[in-house]
Amino acid sequence: MTHQGQNIKVAVDIVIFSILDNALKVILIQMKKKPFTGKWAFPGGLIGNKESLDDAARRELAEKSAVTNIYLEQLYTFGNPKRDSNGRVISAAYFALIDSSRIRLKTTDKYSDVKWFDIKNLPRLAYDHRDIANYALQRLRWKLEYSNIVYSLLPKSFTLSQMRRTYEIILGRKIDRRNFQRKVLSIDILKSTHRKQIGKHRPALLYEFKTRKPAIVEVL
Amino acid sequence: MTHQGQNIKVAVDIVIFSILDNALKVILIQMKKKPFTGKWAFPGGLIGNKESLDDAARRELAEKSAVTNIYLEQLYTFGNPKRDSNGRVISAAYFALIDSSRIRLKTTDKYSDVKWFDIKNLPRLAYDHRDIANYALQRLRWKLEYSNIVYSLLPKSFTLSQMRRTYEIILGRKIDRRNFQRKVLSIDILKSTHRKQIGKHRPALLYEFKTRKPAIVEVL
Repeated sequence: MTHQGQNIKVAVDIVIFSILDNALKVILIQMKKKPFTGKWAFPGGLIGNKESLDDAARRELAEKSAVTNIYLEQLYTFGNPKRDSNGRVISAAYFALIDSSRIRLKTTDKYSDVKWFDIKNLPRLAYDHRDIANYALQRLRWKLEYSNIVYSLLPKSFTLSQMRRTYEIILGRKIDRRNFQRKVLSIDILKSTHRKQIGKHRPALLYEFKTRKPAIVEVL
Repeated sequence: MTHQGQNIKVAVDIVIFSILDNALKVILIQMKKKPFTGKWAFPGGLIGNKESLDDAARRELAEKSAVTNIYLEQLYTFGNPKRDSNGRVISAAYFALIDSSRIRLKTTDKYSDVKWFDIKNLPRLAYDHRDIANYALQRLRWKLEYSNIVYSLLPKSFTLSQMRRTYEIILGRKIDRRNFQRKVLSIDILKSTHRKQIGKHRPALLYEFKTRKPAIVEVL
């Protein structure tokens, strides 16, 4: 195993999650290049020679959406020697969380299409991107239970029902309303805005996160 | 950014943890090659063209210790463009947990020395290995609270005091004996052997893990 002999490329791929139409969705791009023409995949690409992995992930993200200040985390590095039939590429996968009200999808001429897909109803994916999707969903669910990062999927102010609904959509199960409210208020991550949301339902108090920075905390 | 233009090497580095002499220790190797001659680092190296990242980590592990069936987990991939002054190398860092009673350190002619170091008292490390050490310790502490992986640091059968002591050493703080016992027994990961350990102290019941496979569970 010498420096000279190694012939491996390095890429990043990024799973961009958001809540749209009451579903957990991810951005997929439709590929142009052979032999994957027409296939769907997570956005990504080779990193630059002087670009860090994080910077490469941020660049890919910026190419897909006109949003900054997004929650971004390195997920896992996929390195199976046969994952890309065009030659060996290892991929550092990232996941990002975006409040859908802040996003505008951008198309580039690199791909033939870019779209949101329900994570529960993905098309056949190129490479090992099905594994990346599974891993990302698992990590997201885990992180949701043990951190405050749900803030990045919610608007600035929101009701406790909205927050609980976000958890239910991602975890794929019902959550008891009273237990959730008691637990969430007890861990002291929210502050009341003293304003109420008026709508179809009974007026409900609007909350904000005390800080919109990642922190470890048991939410459920 | 074209396939042709990229000039980056891929390596793995591995943080091998064990409990020895009532301290949390890691294996470091002393480097031979310039410009790092004499410096200490985590064991690692470039991956083979047909070798997966996991296989490369297992190979490095096997070269350092005559032990199989070790807990091994990918930690994080470090990709700062300036982390290696010899040329660009990105490193997928792994961490491993080993019961020290099962390990024999092996030296190879690749390095001038290989030794255990207390994680609280590391020498100056080569590359960005100080960052890798910090990240590995953080992940280990987190995993210890939210999984059963402490099994890989304990002998087959052990007392609850031994188990608690392992937690105390790694977390670097005292843990209340009664709360710990109650919590650990309530989460149903252990089974009694119905044997007792006889020694300096009052005879204590010996326990085993029901399964020695990683599982998510709140221990503390």
